[in-house]
Amino acid sequence: MASHGFWFLGAENATGNGSQSPNTPLLNVGEAEKTAQAQVKAEDGSTVESCGCNKPCNCPKATVCFSDLYSTDLLPALDGDAKTMNFLQEVVDILLAYIVESFDRSTKVIDFHYPNELLQRNNWELSDEPETLDDILISCRATLKYAIKTAHPRYFNQLSTGLDMVGLAADWLTSTANTNMFTYEVAPVFVLLEYVTLKKMREIIGWQDGRGDGIFSPGGAISNMYAMLLARYKMFPEVKEKGMSSVPRLVAFTSEHSHFSIKKGAAALGIGTESVICIKADERGKMIPSDLERRIIEAKQKGYVPFFVSATAGTTVYGAFDPLMAIADICKKHDVWMHVDGAWGGSLLMSRKHRWKLNGVERANSMTWNPHKMMAVPLQCSALLVREEGLMQSCNQMQACYLFQQDKHYDLSYDTGDKALQCGRHVDIFKLWLMWRAKGTIGFEAQIDKCLELSEYLYNKIKDREGYEMVFDGKPQHTNVCFWYLPPGVRYLEDKVEKMKRLHKVAPVIKARMMEYGTTMVSYQPQGDKVNFFRMVISNPAATFEDIDFLIEEIERLGQDL
Amino acid sequence: MASHGFWFLGAENATGNGSQSPNTPLLNVGEAEKTAQAQVKAEDGSTVESCGCNKPCNCPKATVCFSDLYSTDLLPALDGDAKTMNFLQEVVDILLAYIVESFDRSTKVIDFHYPNELLQRNNWELSDEPETLDDILISCRATLKYAIKTAHPRYFNQLSTGLDMVGLAADWLTSTANTNMFTYEVAPVFVLLEYVTLKKMREIIGWQDGRGDGIFSPGGAISNMYAMLLARYKMFPEVKEKGMSSVPRLVAFTSEHSHFSIKKGAAALGIGTESVICIKADERGKMIPSDLERRIIEAKQKGYVPFFVSATAGTTVYGAFDPLMAIADICKKHDVWMHVDGAWGGSLLMSRKHRWKLNGVERANSMTWNPHKMMAVPLQCSALLVREEGLMQSCNQMQACYLFQQDKHYDLSYDTGDKALQCGRHVDIFKLWLMWRAKGTIGFEAQIDKCLELSEYLYNKIKDREGYEMVFDGKPQHTNVCFWYLPPGVRYLEDKVEKMKRLHKVAPVIKARMMEYGTTMVSYQPQGDKVNFFRMVISNPAATFEDIDFLIEEIERLGQDL
Repeated sequence: MASHGFWFLGAENATGNGSQSPNTPLLNVGEAEKTAQAQVKAEDGSTVESCGCNKPCNCPKATVCFSDLYSTDLLPALDGDAKTMNFLQEVVDILLAYIVESFDRSTKVIDFHYPNELLQRNNWELSDEPETLDDILISCRATLKYAIKTAHPRYFNQLSTGLDMVGLAADWLTSTANTNMFTYEVAPVFVLLEYVTLKKMREIIGWQDGRGDGIFSPGGAISNMYAMLLARYKMFPEVKEKGMSSVPRLVAFTSEHSHFSIKKGAAALGIGTESVICIKADERGKMIPSDLERRIIEAKQKGYVPFFVSATAGTTVYGAFDPLMAIADICKKHDVWMHVDGAWGGSLLMSRKHRWKLNGVERANSMTWNPHKMMAVPLQCSALLVREEGLMQSCNQMQACYLFQQDKHYDLSYDTGDKALQCGRHVDIFKLWLMWRAKGTIGFEAQIDKCLELSEYLYNKIKDREGYEMVFDGKPQHTNVCFWYLPPGVRYLEDKVEKMKRLHKVAPVIKARMMEYGTTMVSYQPQGDKVNFFRMVISNPAATFEDIDFLIEEIERLGQDL
Repeated sequence: MASHGFWFLGAENATGNGSQSPNTPLLNVGEAEKTAQAQVKAEDGSTVESCGCNKPCNCPKATVCFSDLYSTDLLPALDGDAKTMNFLQEVVDILLAYIVESFDRSTKVIDFHYPNELLQRNNWELSDEPETLDDILISCRATLKYAIKTAHPRYFNQLSTGLDMVGLAADWLTSTANTNMFTYEVAPVFVLLEYVTLKKMREIIGWQDGRGDGIFSPGGAISNMYAMLLARYKMFPEVKEKGMSSVPRLVAFTSEHSHFSIKKGAAALGIGTESVICIKADERGKMIPSDLERRIIEAKQKGYVPFFVSATAGTTVYGAFDPLMAIADICKKHDVWMHVDGAWGGSLLMSRKHRWKLNGVERANSMTWNPHKMMAVPLQCSALLVREEGLMQSCNQMQACYLFQQDKHYDLSYDTGDKALQCGRHVDIFKLWLMWRAKGTIGFEAQIDKCLELSEYLYNKIKDREGYEMVFDGKPQHTNVCFWYLPPGVRYLEDKVEKMKRLHKVAPVIKARMMEYGTTMVSYQPQGDKVNFFRMVISNPAATFEDIDFLIEEIERLGQDL
């Protein structure tokens, strides 16, 4: 109980019989307020107007001033309460400085410390007592000091990188509007913008007149889970009331290179991971359609019911695009829901040069598409798009009477909350919408095309370079470039087993050194029987050819002694 | 295809054979860049340093200047690129003005327009071409003009209201840091702050030494779904691989007043809504323990397996607290997972005066607690807390090798992402942590106590007032005050059926008028056989006694002719 503070010791002794805690509350603002709503005595005995805060606060009656009992209980006043506005402006100044620094190649991507060390370098504890505003500003600075600069042009670690200034501004506005997506009533503009944007995305997919449905969900994993949920409901609507025990054994199919969220979703939905059948991929990581068909037929022969195929448009590691047209033919033939997980690759639909890689997506029943990845929209922004109208609503609605009242005075079709799994839902739409307005579709196209060019540049640079080996042949389809760097000490080893064993340790060591120097970050992993290799991805519009050159030099600098 | 634009017509004709789209890309920045990385010719023929943007951009080599092909493709420069910084500062100025306005009682809570009207009042469409930065600022202003002012001291419509200045600053910082919670590698500070804060919350619940587990999830519905998922896995771990067909029929229990997310979760998890047994509540909305035990025994007799009881601490409509101690006894006796849905009422644990209402919560296996409600943390911030360590990890992990590499150089226990259903997860912790630092626990206590005092003030004011009828007797346990307002024309009707019929229509009309005048907003709903009544809730620390007085006056003003 040491770190527990004085605070809850009393409360734990409180009885459950409805009496109040034996401790006297520290503060009893309200009681006093009731008797002093308009005027209070000032220290000099004169009567002073008060906003109702029980002190001669000198703010006009209409002003909010709940309490300055604590210096940090800030509320803005009608006249722009200087203290509050100064505080917010100081925070903004800290953020603006951080932004400038983040894009500066001479600064570190990360000032890395091990968890225990970082815990000790600062006081992160929560206590009973308030801190001053100056302390709060110090905490903001400390938090940013040890944060990863995800906007840094040499941060290549994840599929989501970069920081778009319009997107950021939009996210600041979203925080300030601080509302919830469940009804038109509380988010009129955002609900309409979601409607407009989802329709536009469906048009881009190629669904007739942009018809269909969709939602912005908290990430691609949840979007994929929604798709699986809808596919199951479409085939067996009784599952909603009666559960999985009312339906035959369902099986889903996805490639062995697909994202782990397909299995995670199957586990959560009560389908079970063993009912997700992994289809073979070719050496480029693309699902092999003939294997899909074979496994579907096999499952049917066993008496299972194939209900869901998740094709991947842009796999996480290889960036591979499954052959959607062939998969669509198979799904149609066997009457199975076709989902396209385009969390990573879906944005290529915005590029006239690259959208052919998703040909066939227009035949899918649903698609996951994360603008927070390749379109560099701030986190999170993930869309699930569904071809059939009305299905999400009937699958998920529970008609809570306190939220989705049927006797409201406006068109209830805009109360979209009941089609969600969530009740409250964060506003993820505004940043995408505002960026789209700022760039236009051609702006997103230029940004995406440039990242793909950078990856092709990297591929061309290393494919024949000494000490490098590509994980698969051919130029990348997405911005993923997968390669081994073989340091001189490993490069010429003749014992193949020993060589692989040593090579397996190269990428983790180079990565750890990158983080300790803070110069760049790139991901690595093994895959199947392949030992650890680097997976380079580019989604940051700030990256340049020079940064690619730097990455290669840095890998060689950090790895040459291994 | 009318609104589709010229954009995708070409792409739709593209062949799927791997060739590029027949359309020539508009831009081909990268090709040129490759040949012009350091120096370019200026118009006057001289050689000028370039950052790699293929233009004599005059920015230092280290500076980012991807493109000003579009005025809105902004990236900040090393020296604080004036254009970018001015834009962000202009947005901040818009936001600061909006904040001041939001707290001003003389402004409208909402400038309401019907959906079709709002669609027409502004151009919200997305197009191929970019807009200017001035247009973007206009869009920001328009969005805020039609937004709900959720910070307004007279906005009582939802359980989440208000706008905390430190919380807002923290959310701006979160957006700027723009990262993801899955690994320590990409969110070192935020991962540690989540660890510190969840531990503190578990201490407050009363779990020994704050031990256990937890996660911040995208809202209370998902937190509740996590709890159900864990309860099922705890009893039948094989369900993860084999699905629901491998387990007997499971049944869950919750009160008839509980949140709809329990049924929604059961539908999604393949349990089915019919397997959620609704337990009777007393007239105050509290679960009746004897009915719970009866239904558990009944279910067992039918051969079903009771696996999950969700008690509610603060129901959505009545604000009722289920008797947790008695429920804990029953759960223990029958060996059933006890979950406490404290999304709304959990924050009362922060108050020495009110925490007795949750006595027994320390015996629960899991708890949902949404700081974005009664603690007024900006949306979203919902915690699921779990007593057993390690369970979340084993239930949800899929061990994706590209994210949770086992050969990293730091303590992998801080890579918490694999215990989540999500892959990427938004940073929801910083706003709560920073507010906690700013207020201290006693600041949250004062804020919560004040809201409860306001609701008691409302209750005392209307309980004997002419024209009002309380939906249930006794003073409120939470800030929910449920009441009917009976306009004079309804008040004296003798035909009870007619009276109820007329009364049912009163709240919706008054609410619609509130929105049209924009003066205040409060929720209403029917419940069971009770016709529409108002549900007043107070979670905004900016609200005062004067605002409560105003609400009553406004209801009477808007309803007197009904």
